[in-house]
Amino acid sequence: MADNSTSRATDPKVLVERMLGGDRLALARLITHVENRTAAVPEIMKAVYPRARRGYIVGVTGPPGAGKSTIVDRLTAHLRAEGGTVGIVAVDPSSPFTGGAVLGDRIRMQAHALDPGVFIRSMATRGSLGGLARATGEVLKLLLAFGHDWVLAETVGVGQTELDIMKLADTTVVALVPESGDAIQTMKAGLLEAADIFVVNKADRAGAPALMGELKFAAHLHYSSSTTPKDVDWEIPVLSCQAQADVGVVELLAEIRRHRGALEAAGALDGRRRRRRRAELEALLIEEFRARVARGVSDGALRTKFDEVEAGDTDPYSAVAAMLPMISLERS
Amino acid sequence: MADNSTSRATDPKVLVERMLGGDRLALARLITHVENRTAAVPEIMKAVYPRARRGYIVGVTGPPGAGKSTIVDRLTAHLRAEGGTVGIVAVDPSSPFTGGAVLGDRIRMQAHALDPGVFIRSMATRGSLGGLARATGEVLKLLLAFGHDWVLAETVGVGQTELDIMKLADTTVVALVPESGDAIQTMKAGLLEAADIFVVNKADRAGAPALMGELKFAAHLHYSSSTTPKDVDWEIPVLSCQAQADVGVVELLAEIRRHRGALEAAGALDGRRRRRRRAELEALLIEEFRARVARGVSDGALRTKFDEVEAGDTDPYSAVAAMLPMISLERS
Repeated sequence: MADNSTSRATDPKVLVERMLGGDRLALARLITHVENRTAAVPEIMKAVYPRARRGYIVGVTGPPGAGKSTIVDRLTAHLRAEGGTVGIVAVDPSSPFTGGAVLGDRIRMQAHALDPGVFIRSMATRGSLGGLARATGEVLKLLLAFGHDWVLAETVGVGQTELDIMKLADTTVVALVPESGDAIQTMKAGLLEAADIFVVNKADRAGAPALMGELKFAAHLHYSSSTTPKDVDWEIPVLSCQAQADVGVVELLAEIRRHRGALEAAGALDGRRRRRRRAELEALLIEEFRARVARGVSDGALRTKFDEVEAGDTDPYSAVAAMLPMISLERS
Repeated sequence: MADNSTSRATDPKVLVERMLGGDRLALARLITHVENRTAAVPEIMKAVYPRARRGYIVGVTGPPGAGKSTIVDRLTAHLRAEGGTVGIVAVDPSSPFTGGAVLGDRIRMQAHALDPGVFIRSMATRGSLGGLARATGEVLKLLLAFGHDWVLAETVGVGQTELDIMKLADTTVVALVPESGDAIQTMKAGLLEAADIFVVNKADRAGAPALMGELKFAAHLHYSSSTTPKDVDWEIPVLSCQAQADVGVVELLAEIRRHRGALEAAGALDGRRRRRRRAELEALLIEEFRARVARGVSDGALRTKFDEVEAGDTDPYSAVAAMLPMISLERS
């Protein structure tokens, strides 16, 4: 019986049941399954998926030093004061020159450590960044399925991985500080596409009004000149705050709610979630293909071709054509 | 006849012939094929691949403002003075907070614009970063096949994409400046694994000796504590330079040669190139799979499943199991 209870405690199916019943330890263990890519992940996610339909995901991103953790911390305090429950995932893709922030930030988050209405988890890169956005998506699903009213996803840095992670959010807040460089740089490479709200933190510092002016100009230009059809009529607002002093955070929360309302009114929230599920499916298909290739190499079927290419006897472009019919996609 | 000569000028097979014969315009056009992912790319690369065996690839990476372009510029001048030919590809993954540097840097590179022994090309992100490392690898192959003695690959920024690109180099130089943050941050997430040589540029500035000391300590710790087997016995040297004044660049070039010699003596250069070819093959396989999935969606075979998942009627984990046998890997 003792053995049986031990195995019950680690059985993924039981963990899911307990998590859905409100067991925080079970939630933490399920997240560990996702982080470690255990074989139980597909089973866990199948069970969790239909339960992850309510709750609202807010992403907070921006360059190192923008005070994202403090913003998340203050937003959480206000949401808790209203009685909402909050799940937080802080993701650190650890790009070499931005890493190191999460640990200190998490210490600050201890303010909520004893609050049963707040669940906090940090995630860092393990090897490939490719898997990080996918794993983050699964953790968000777990946090939603647990029943959180709000899930806040914070990413350190602003590379492609962070942008991918932001696609998982319903509303994305981009936090900047006067020191983070000029608005022109900020506008490059997709951040205007990713942002729903800009907030300039540490707004008492020199340069804040200039940065806000530039951001407003860029946001307006983006809004009025965009030729791609939009799912919602929304010009990115530019707010200011001093999160440390809790100045402007209530206004930020109000703006997040206004964006949510605009998405819902336009039917765009559902559209975004639909596109997200499609992208999830595509990413899973590719991951499974990658696993099949690895298996084909280890059982020898594909090994010869890999070896030929490695030796330089075949070019990879010719090898691909020869190998594709050799890869089994049958049920394993 | 006029028509025939026009079509000959754009026929990829003819372009490859002309490029191999030393035609720079043909080389530029082939690179454009790679950048635009035209249908001719596999055919081009099959023809080029066996010709890309000589030449040596040096990667130069580091944070924005580290003076990478100036270093590349000065290295090029010294290599040219020795009579070597140099191909340069400058890659800007345009992470939102580092973008914008390439254009100005390229203007500086005009010093070599009239030198037929130097070929310079800039590449920027078009959409997905995933394809950038692959496209860069193909451009490096083209630059090698053209017959360049040296190919220099410069990346702006230091995210995962840049690290992926650095894996394409035989020797990787990481350039830092006193302002680029402390060594601890630098050491995070793979940069110690990627670097073969550290160079502190703008070494006349305050903080340079301290940064060099930290880097030397970290490099030595990494060298003496690493438990993973190394392909070459090499402790990352830490050099200093003032590239703008051409101080320390000859020494950097000597160190690059010393690293090349160490790799060759240990038989590691061949090993690295073998692993690179293997990785290229895997990336191409996945890209082809992605294309097959897209085709399956557009011809309807996979569309229903995608639609079910999008609508939330099926979870993606169940859908993957059902879909894999439906994906055709037969020769197209």
